[in-house]
Amino acid sequence: MQLAMINERILPFEQLDPVYHDRGIYFGDGVYEVIRSYNGKIFALEDHLERFERGLAAIDIAGVEVDTVRKRVENAFSKSQIADAKIYFHVTRGSAPRTHAGTAGLKPNFFLTITALEDKKREKERGIAVSTYPDLRWKRCDIKTLNLLPNVLAERDAEKKGCTEAILVNEDGLITEGAASAFFAVFDFGLWTTPLGANVLASVTRKWVLRAAEGVGLEVIEESVEAAQADKADELFIGVTTRDIVGIVEFDGKTVGSGRPGEWTRKLEAEFLKFTV
Amino acid sequence: MQLAMINERILPFEQLDPVYHDRGIYFGDGVYEVIRSYNGKIFALEDHLERFERGLAAIDIAGVEVDTVRKRVENAFSKSQIADAKIYFHVTRGSAPRTHAGTAGLKPNFFLTITALEDKKREKERGIAVSTYPDLRWKRCDIKTLNLLPNVLAERDAEKKGCTEAILVNEDGLITEGAASAFFAVFDFGLWTTPLGANVLASVTRKWVLRAAEGVGLEVIEESVEAAQADKADELFIGVTTRDIVGIVEFDGKTVGSGRPGEWTRKLEAEFLKFTV
Repeated sequence: MQLAMINERILPFEQLDPVYHDRGIYFGDGVYEVIRSYNGKIFALEDHLERFERGLAAIDIAGVEVDTVRKRVENAFSKSQIADAKIYFHVTRGSAPRTHAGTAGLKPNFFLTITALEDKKREKERGIAVSTYPDLRWKRCDIKTLNLLPNVLAERDAEKKGCTEAILVNEDGLITEGAASAFFAVFDFGLWTTPLGANVLASVTRKWVLRAAEGVGLEVIEESVEAAQADKADELFIGVTTRDIVGIVEFDGKTVGSGRPGEWTRKLEAEFLKFTV
Repeated sequence: MQLAMINERILPFEQLDPVYHDRGIYFGDGVYEVIRSYNGKIFALEDHLERFERGLAAIDIAGVEVDTVRKRVENAFSKSQIADAKIYFHVTRGSAPRTHAGTAGLKPNFFLTITALEDKKREKERGIAVSTYPDLRWKRCDIKTLNLLPNVLAERDAEKKGCTEAILVNEDGLITEGAASAFFAVFDFGLWTTPLGANVLASVTRKWVLRAAEGVGLEVIEESVEAAQADKADELFIGVTTRDIVGIVEFDGKTVGSGRPGEWTRKLEAEFLKFTV
């Protein structure tokens, strides 16, 4: 008899709820997005949906209409009545007994949560400490997939060091991005950030930070920053959907700038927030 | 109100079954094993359990006793009464609303299936066609984790090409391993296979194939094979738990050897099967 076992419980294989056969869990075979709203208004929904669509195409998941996803997001958001919401959703290739290929006819699974964002005001005022971790990820970090174990390992390492974010460093000693954020450095009058490519995610926040830089007259230099030079920057910050811009005040135990989020960081955030209204 | 959405269905976040919050699906935050039995006897259980334990330690999942896992496997296998069984199991870090770190106190989830192995006799007699695919995986392929999307993409590519397995090739043009198997080549009187390291899984089948090679007097050369040279081998085969040894007769469309599984491949399989009795 074919069997399944969930912790201690044995049951016939055929009685297994399809959710246990989700290819998300067997393989991480899916893509996801995290979106937020500011004061009742979803920010940059189209940017996220475009990236999501590119991700589905990149891993060849068919049968998911972006219009349907948009409607689901808007519908759930409206029902939630949360002004400052974090909207997470993923699509996986579907549920079926485990086999790498042979997925013809599978129906993709959609899953979404909407939760209230935590207030990060104090964190933003004080700035955060970050620590570095080797970038162990695969060669297609431009796709926002459910294969996030290297990111989890990096974040767990940061947590152990009392840090809020892990900054990933590649084999050449260059910073790619944060384990769950984009990374930015201000040197003189230039804003440095890793150029887009297969080794980093095309962060939506990054796009709007670069637009904000234009607004405040800060030159953008799309070049990677050496991890060994990072603490010598005038200012460092991360960009992430749920918290937009957060200053980094400690990098691998070394104080950055004045030890408080810098002038440009604050200016950029003010400019960024204009886009969210 | 915090909400969740499963396909079209909206429900309060608090009513979400914890299985939807499995860190396996959010992050692939877990490790797995595939074991088989031959004629009522589980093969190499201790090898698999040892690797599983190393995997749990490598990604720092605590609270899972290998003795408990062994008992669960043996118990479920015994109840199944399947002589030639495929036993799959994974452990994830647990279930909780999505957050990369902050997992203190989580209880790991265990999941297992036992199914009857398909008969692969004809496949073994005829041999298989394989195709190459870039090795896009992360830098710790020695850990058998649930982050398997690059493997899925490779297997889907092979499937489209009418092939049974994808052979992964790194940036230097060297074969690392199959997307779900170990890779072997016979040149003259030597058995070539990738040396163990962070870039390949310490395959249990590989270990027993190397022992079989000793038994049949075939010298083992732990060196990577160039993809461009592979079709010039006398024989090629893969090693995989569910099918032990399977000859490769076509490599990227080119015939290997005589176009039938080779002499050494057959000898090695006969020797290998002695270990399974």
